[in-house]
Amino acid sequence: MSETPSDADVQKLLDAGWNRVDDRDAITKTYKFKTFIDAFGFMSKAALAAEKMNHHPEWSNVYNRVEVTLTTHDAGGLSSLDVELAQKMDAMA
Amino acid sequence: MSETPSDADVQKLLDAGWNRVDDRDAITKTYKFKTFIDAFGFMSKAALAAEKMNHHPEWSNVYNRVEVTLTTHDAGGLSSLDVELAQKMDAMA
Repeated sequence: MSETPSDADVQKLLDAGWNRVDDRDAITKTYKFKTFIDAFGFMSKAALAAEKMNHHPEWSNVYNRVEVTLTTHDAGGLSSLDVELAQKMDAMA
Repeated sequence: MSETPSDADVQKLLDAGWNRVDDRDAITKTYKFKTFIDAFGFMSKAALAAEKMNHHPEWSNVYNRVEVTLTTHDAGGLSSLDVELAQKMDAMA
């Protein structure tokens, strides 16, 4: 179930604040929260969603900021799984 | 309570697998777990400890790996808080 996403789906993510990564077929977004509790709360929700999808982000956290990069290693680049996880993360943030 | 750590305390961490970061007065360690669940379980425990200490790591996660960097911005470098959090993380990992 890791199909190539449609251009329209990717464009929606770019419109929602995601950016393409240089030199990789991946997308990235930095979420900023009020506090570490808010940031890690977001990560906890997203971690459960990711594990359920068996599709995991590359991400980092410094205090109230969470930087997420999504790509599908098995697919060698962006897939519909990344679009789905990105949408879920945006809904949770 | 963010005193300069003793050389002996820092050396113990280096002996336990922590490394000094180039160009910053900070230490870093990469933990490797079996699964994402194990990695994020570790992060959840460490996040609670960090929030309780009001001292937070810089960290990133890719699937089963967690890379942690510790420094104390207020102190302009390593402090006893970093030693304490590093010891707690090692005990949790």
